[in-house]
Amino acid sequence: MTSTFRHIALIGKYHTPSAAAPSAESSASLQRIAAHVRSLGCEVILDTQSAIYAGMTDYPSMDVDGLGKHCDLGLVVGGDGTMLGVSRHLARYGTPLVGINQGRLGFVTDIALDDFESSISSILQGEYEEDERPLMHARVMRDDVCVFEAQAMNDVVVNRGSTSGMVELRIEVGGHFVSNQRADGLIVATPTGSTAYALSAGGPMLHPSIPAWVMVPIAPHNLSNRPIVLSDAQEITIEVVGGRGDVSANFDMQSLASLQHGDRILVKRADHSVHFLHPKGWNYFATLRKKLGWNEGGS
Amino acid sequence: MTSTFRHIALIGKYHTPSAAAPSAESSASLQRIAAHVRSLGCEVILDTQSAIYAGMTDYPSMDVDGLGKHCDLGLVVGGDGTMLGVSRHLARYGTPLVGINQGRLGFVTDIALDDFESSISSILQGEYEEDERPLMHARVMRDDVCVFEAQAMNDVVVNRGSTSGMVELRIEVGGHFVSNQRADGLIVATPTGSTAYALSAGGPMLHPSIPAWVMVPIAPHNLSNRPIVLSDAQEITIEVVGGRGDVSANFDMQSLASLQHGDRILVKRADHSVHFLHPKGWNYFATLRKKLGWNEGGS
Amino acid sequence: MTSTFRHIALIGKYHTPSAAAPSAESSASLQRIAAHVRSLGCEVILDTQSAIYAGMTDYPSMDVDGLGKHCDLGLVVGGDGTMLGVSRHLARYGTPLVGINQGRLGFVTDIALDDFESSISSILQGEYEEDERPLMHARVMRDDVCVFEAQAMNDVVVNRGSTSGMVELRIEVGGHFVSNQRADGLIVATPTGSTAYALSAGGPMLHPSIPAWVMVPIAPHNLSNRPIVLSDAQEITIEVVGGRGDVSANFDMQSLASLQHGDRILVKRADHSVHFLHPKGWNYFATLRKKLGWNEGGS
Amino acid sequence: MTSTFRHIALIGKYHTPSAAAPSAESSASLQRIAAHVRSLGCEVILDTQSAIYAGMTDYPSMDVDGLGKHCDLGLVVGGDGTMLGVSRHLARYGTPLVGINQGRLGFVTDIALDDFESSISSILQGEYEEDERPLMHARVMRDDVCVFEAQAMNDVVVNRGSTSGMVELRIEVGGHFVSNQRADGLIVATPTGSTAYALSAGGPMLHPSIPAWVMVPIAPHNLSNRPIVLSDAQEITIEVVGGRGDVSANFDMQSLASLQHGDRILVKRADHSVHFLHPKGWNYFATLRKKLGWNEGGS
Repeated sequence: MTSTFRHIALIGKYHTPSAAAPSAESSASLQRIAAHVRSLGCEVILDTQSAIYAGMTDYPSMDVDGLGKHCDLGLVVGGDGTMLGVSRHLARYGTPLVGINQGRLGFVTDIALDDFESSISSILQGEYEEDERPLMHARVMRDDVCVFEAQAMNDVVVNRGSTSGMVELRIEVGGHFVSNQRADGLIVATPTGSTAYALSAGGPMLHPSIPAWVMVPIAPHNLSNRPIVLSDAQEITIEVVGGRGDVSANFDMQSLASLQHGDRILVKRADHSVHFLHPKGWNYFATLRKKLGWNEGGS
Repeated sequence: MTSTFRHIALIGKYHTPSAAAPSAESSASLQRIAAHVRSLGCEVILDTQSAIYAGMTDYPSMDVDGLGKHCDLGLVVGGDGTMLGVSRHLARYGTPLVGINQGRLGFVTDIALDDFESSISSILQGEYEEDERPLMHARVMRDDVCVFEAQAMNDVVVNRGSTSGMVELRIEVGGHFVSNQRADGLIVATPTGSTAYALSAGGPMLHPSIPAWVMVPIAPHNLSNRPIVLSDAQEITIEVVGGRGDVSANFDMQSLASLQHGDRILVKRADHSVHFLHPKGWNYFATLRKKLGWNEGGS
Repeated sequence: MTSTFRHIALIGKYHTPSAAAPSAESSASLQRIAAHVRSLGCEVILDTQSAIYAGMTDYPSMDVDGLGKHCDLGLVVGGDGTMLGVSRHLARYGTPLVGINQGRLGFVTDIALDDFESSISSILQGEYEEDERPLMHARVMRDDVCVFEAQAMNDVVVNRGSTSGMVELRIEVGGHFVSNQRADGLIVATPTGSTAYALSAGGPMLHPSIPAWVMVPIAPHNLSNRPIVLSDAQEITIEVVGGRGDVSANFDMQSLASLQHGDRILVKRADHSVHFLHPKGWNYFATLRKKLGWNEGGS
Repeated sequence: MTSTFRHIALIGKYHTPSAAAPSAESSASLQRIAAHVRSLGCEVILDTQSAIYAGMTDYPSMDVDGLGKHCDLGLVVGGDGTMLGVSRHLARYGTPLVGINQGRLGFVTDIALDDFESSISSILQGEYEEDERPLMHARVMRDDVCVFEAQAMNDVVVNRGSTSGMVELRIEVGGHFVSNQRADGLIVATPTGSTAYALSAGGPMLHPSIPAWVMVPIAPHNLSNRPIVLSDAQEITIEVVGGRGDVSANFDMQSLASLQHGDRILVKRADHSVHFLHPKGWNYFATLRKKLGWNEGGS
């Protein structure tokens, strides 16, 4: 057998120093996956943190940027949250990613650890469904100076603090004024993020192939202030124009607290996308049915 | 003419020391109203703060508790927010309240300053519609000690901080477990509060005559977690069981920040209700139509 | 053992002539239940239709009105739909009802056929939770003549036909004009019905103890036209004032098609309520959790 | 002055024989517009029906297909409904369209009759904003035979009759099974239709530049059955698999009643789009603000 991919990054959910110490069980999972991939004739390189946490010294390791430069595929072991973190990091290198999930399958981590072998073997041989997901690039401008910059796979959220009243936000799209919104906050979500927080706040699902964001107000004062789907080709500007108390901006789970009146959050499509690979036969709708508990009944 | 009410409290929106200094315009409003009420043969007593702010020395004044003991009617000059604050204070004295609004009419402050004279004259002579509103009594228990206590006309809200993830709340009603909810927060609203924040979060309106609260989740993780209308005869217990970061409880706009896991918020009907008086012919549905911008078309 | 109840009506889902022929399985179920109840020393009387369909000649039988006059308890074998039909019929006699369900448990039919014996034995000995549900009485008036009259356990629905545009309805409550609504239709639901069609249309759940209906617009043209909870002490009047094509009124599943402009549907609380008995320990919230798929996590 | 457009079709709301007889007022409007356009040096051709109804014999007239072949611009006088009908007809000819509205301005008919002159003059000289809108092509297949075919600017709706219960629909997208849905019905809307019926049923707004449809369930039985935005590059198949009573399909307002189990409605993007021209400075968000009653506050 020849593999389409040769240099395989293996990344656990402990790739960030802040993560909790791993269980023996998850170390064993990484060992199992590494051994399987090596047995298929591929090089396996661990991310440095996972190697340390799992105590795996029999494989080379690199930091995440090194993995991006060197590897032609990444295997991420964890849930959707882990995958979002890794994919934001690796997007610039174009490394396609595969998610192996130890627990309940996620929206994008859909290979169960219990029987990963056949799925991974097939993917390494070039049998897969490709699934490209856009990434958002966001900046926070204060007096024309960029004070924060981040990428987001799911969403950019501006919201009020726990004891403060509504925020007032002024929205522009492509330089055109859209509306002033008074609400608990505002979510701008990618198709990937449309099934996360934005869905809880009343937004629609967006198929990943749609080149669009959805903007969803959280508990808006005006009942006609409804979710709106916007082209990802135009920059969205959210200016904090009112609201007492603490206002913050959140990019996936990265946060900037204490926004000030006049601060502007600018959201546009990032230069790079993320490429997920799924087992042959995967499709988005099957994932929706499983995750949302829709009745089956189809073939 | 003989008036049904003899001792009239006159309370401006500056009854709290923290309020901003009043404009000359609003002082003139208080003067106009006081003069009109005195001309009808009633005693006019100002609340101390309003008297000071408005520089009105030609009328007796008392603090709000004194007004409650002495007066048989209160005229509140301001918006719905002012009225909610005053009514929480005066509920224990049973003083009926009338709202005179300088700006856009509110849900419960529905007499326009511009032509208050005829409305007030009629009400003082006993021509009015009575409108009783229940009040919530809430306590926060920490290790079986009450660490906070408040009354609320609108709502009790438990919610997450601006940079923290969802809270997890355990709900009991009348001692029966209802559900564990993961969400941005939870609102328990009176009928009065059902047209305020709870409506923005997706709750129904409750007619004031309904002896019930509505419990509305804010951006709930579970899509089947929907608003539920509960009897006001049973105590609701909200326990903070999960969630990272700052969690707070808010009672109308009074806040208790930094709730801890295990804290329990207990909500029950207060011993006293608030009695609003409206001009003859007032009805709740006309107010809804005006405030929500419903089409007219009826007689 | 002495039973609190002596004369027990046993009613299958085939109590209406229009129902499909029963399976051998459901006949066996009726036999099993009848034998068990007789073994406890109670008289068992079947409804005439069920006796015929099930071929059960060893028990007396009566029509449903006869059962209402003679029996002090009714056992209904079927799902929620069967129970709603029987309970509308028996409400005037005050006969308490118990639901035994052969399939997936319902909101009000919550004893599984598989192990009904202990639950039924306990209930017959007076060990039960009582659950009173209000019933709606509705009339359709055309030129001041009542052209249709029905009771409803779940809801009264006025809606448009499949190829016609919106209906326009004029709502009054207690003689007060509420609003003109343009929508696909309008639902007025009891607490029992609040978890059925009204929930799908965006309404809240109403605890059964709330003396109220919820009025829910279906796909309303005006985005501020939201569900409203109304006292069941006041009559609701829905007048058809506009809309092309077929408009109908539905009372549970009983229908009156071809409503005309000017027709008025009057909804008030019926004189009688329905009394369901549930096994000791039953509570409403446990049923909600099960039916709506809420997470458990409480004791 | 030279005009960019030379042959101008003028189409009133009476272009369909079924429309009500026009008022003298609207005839006068057509006269005014025709005279103004001729004064700018353009040829004016009326649609045959409008010419007859308005009694205008001093201009040539053609049927709508003739107008499509001959003219390089169409002026439509009426509301959004009139414009949708005309645009479905003319899409195949690529004729750009301008809407002049006698009443309340619409989403796509945004030039007020009162001061149309300057707007029309500018547009004829090539000063305009172009606004391309996709069109849906839908077919109804019964036993592999196409029994109905239509284009739709707003939406394709499958829904239940007024006295029947829920329909059950099986959805496929691009040949992939999506879900079985039990509901009152299902809407598939274009961006143009997203602010019409789909919005009432809980759908999001879609900016016209998004190459997507939104699929919105109407009062779905399953609470996790939510609006989903789908690529317009893939065909949507809706199969009627259950539901008693009358089920119909509606394409804008064109209807096919009495659908049968097994009937499949196929929706794809039509070969042609519609091109609206708006006065310079027009933008979509300003229209949303005006039509939805959003607060202004921007420049």
